[in-house]
Amino acid sequence: MAKNSLTAIGIDLGGSHLTAALVNPNGQIKHKKTASYLKAPNGPHGTQLMVKLVRELLHHSSSEICGVGIACPGSVDFNKGIVLADSPNLIGWKGTRLRQDLESSVKLPVLIDNDANLAAWGEKYWGAGKKAENFICLTLGTGVGGGIIINNQIYRGSHYYAGEIGHMKINTFIEGSPKCSCGSYGCLEALISAPAIARDFARLKGIRLSHSITAKTVFDAAKRGDSAARQIVQQTAYYLGNAISSLINIFDPDIVIIGGGIAKAGPILFNPAQRIINNNSMPHPLRKPAIVPAKLGENAGLLGAAALVFSDLKK
Amino acid sequence: MAKNSLTAIGIDLGGSHLTAALVNPNGQIKHKKTASYLKAPNGPHGTQLMVKLVRELLHHSSSEICGVGIACPGSVDFNKGIVLADSPNLIGWKGTRLRQDLESSVKLPVLIDNDANLAAWGEKYWGAGKKAENFICLTLGTGVGGGIIINNQIYRGSHYYAGEIGHMKINTFIEGSPKCSCGSYGCLEALISAPAIARDFARLKGIRLSHSITAKTVFDAAKRGDSAARQIVQQTAYYLGNAISSLINIFDPDIVIIGGGIAKAGPILFNPAQRIINNNSMPHPLRKPAIVPAKLGENAGLLGAAALVFSDLKK
Repeated sequence: MAKNSLTAIGIDLGGSHLTAALVNPNGQIKHKKTASYLKAPNGPHGTQLMVKLVRELLHHSSSEICGVGIACPGSVDFNKGIVLADSPNLIGWKGTRLRQDLESSVKLPVLIDNDANLAAWGEKYWGAGKKAENFICLTLGTGVGGGIIINNQIYRGSHYYAGEIGHMKINTFIEGSPKCSCGSYGCLEALISAPAIARDFARLKGIRLSHSITAKTVFDAAKRGDSAARQIVQQTAYYLGNAISSLINIFDPDIVIIGGGIAKAGPILFNPAQRIINNNSMPHPLRKPAIVPAKLGENAGLLGAAALVFSDLKK
Repeated sequence: MAKNSLTAIGIDLGGSHLTAALVNPNGQIKHKKTASYLKAPNGPHGTQLMVKLVRELLHHSSSEICGVGIACPGSVDFNKGIVLADSPNLIGWKGTRLRQDLESSVKLPVLIDNDANLAAWGEKYWGAGKKAENFICLTLGTGVGGGIIINNQIYRGSHYYAGEIGHMKINTFIEGSPKCSCGSYGCLEALISAPAIARDFARLKGIRLSHSITAKTVFDAAKRGDSAARQIVQQTAYYLGNAISSLINIFDPDIVIIGGGIAKAGPILFNPAQRIINNNSMPHPLRKPAIVPAKLGENAGLLGAAALVFSDLKK
């Protein structure tokens, strides 16, 4: 059978809904379906919903489905296909034997991994990391996620919990540093996540934080010249640049890829962050430490999950 | 030939002198020689001195020498055996083709790697990291060095410059944060290296910094109950604990090994650092993030260099 007649199903397990899609070996999404949780997004209910979505996609596909990949927040035992620990954005899945449950229902091979790992894997397979042997992929949004590729493979750590870049302590000294979702202080996520950007902007403006203030509205205001917004964008670039300088000094990667909603801000964030990085990562004759925008956009997790299925076929 | 009849030569290239030793396959040092640089420790002069030391050790050995390993500060092209970049503690070696020069003189296989990488490799081979698949080894002394073991191998990065843990930015905000040897601010090394500990103690005491104030005298004073010294030790443990929490969140290692002169302080430093780590690394059902003292002591680099020779034989 020709390789191109194969299709994988990629699934992104989100806080409020599931997204599943048929993906071809070139990383093109052929058909996508979304379903919201009716009950709290706990494991058994979510698994049922997932089975339903996969069956609908199977009906829709004219080519052979080679497997299902699932991008899941939190810590996931990749080898056993079990959710090990809940994430703040997805409670109630801990202990779910997602691979086993899904495989027995849909009779297809199932692979499951952490969503930030898979965003990185998607970039490696089809995106901005194709030529990079070692890189970090940061996803900047409601949280700050990280995926680590080392020697062309996902690095998962000793307990499937590597890559929590959002919980680097980059500001260990300042009093009143905001508390992070992990319970600690001084974490990158508590300083540059979308809610942190909105919070700091409202505080600087002396206005009440409301749903109409988002990271996007702050970046838009900065582009229009609002001085408070510009100050927050500078601050975000400063923290981001320092964190990436640390990552470059630690990992000596080929590149650092940045995705997620906040990365849509573009040059207004990337340019000052790159200047910070140039000044703060250790100089070396062979490298120019570069940040690179992610290519896969909001489908990164889902595409990475499909890429995992395809890469597993090659083993 | 029985394995135990083989001996490796390990060399540690220091800022003021060279140390070389015969090491057996159990990691025991059988004979050690040291030589100080007569001229500035530049590459050609240092290489001559190294050849002289190796020849003396060859005369002294009754068993077969299987190769020479060299631990070198700075960035080293492990595959080509070339010093890529000087380190602040060792200037004038950049571009030295150490492997080629030494192999042609002593007619033995030569391997060369960064000294912090090799301290980690020594701990993996004969020390505290034997059972760990993934770990970080920090060497706390005049500088703060780091070696990274991933999947039981040294992780060197894309340009042979990984593991510069001393240049993590852990304090990005405080005004007047001391400048680091790398030119940046807020680096771990600028906050917890031996000179930083002496500097901060003298400042807190309001006394002039002199050669009689060292990290060791500060830890000794803290053990005797000196309140300023205790405060500096607490501060050191705080920064160290936060940095290691970040490393645990990033790498999810089995353990973090701590060696170097400052690690000799023992529980007075390790206990409060461990408490910071317990509170600031992300909780996970399968792990208890632990710091572990290094086992190889001041011979870590030299033993790691010998371990590199033995591990290369097994390939």
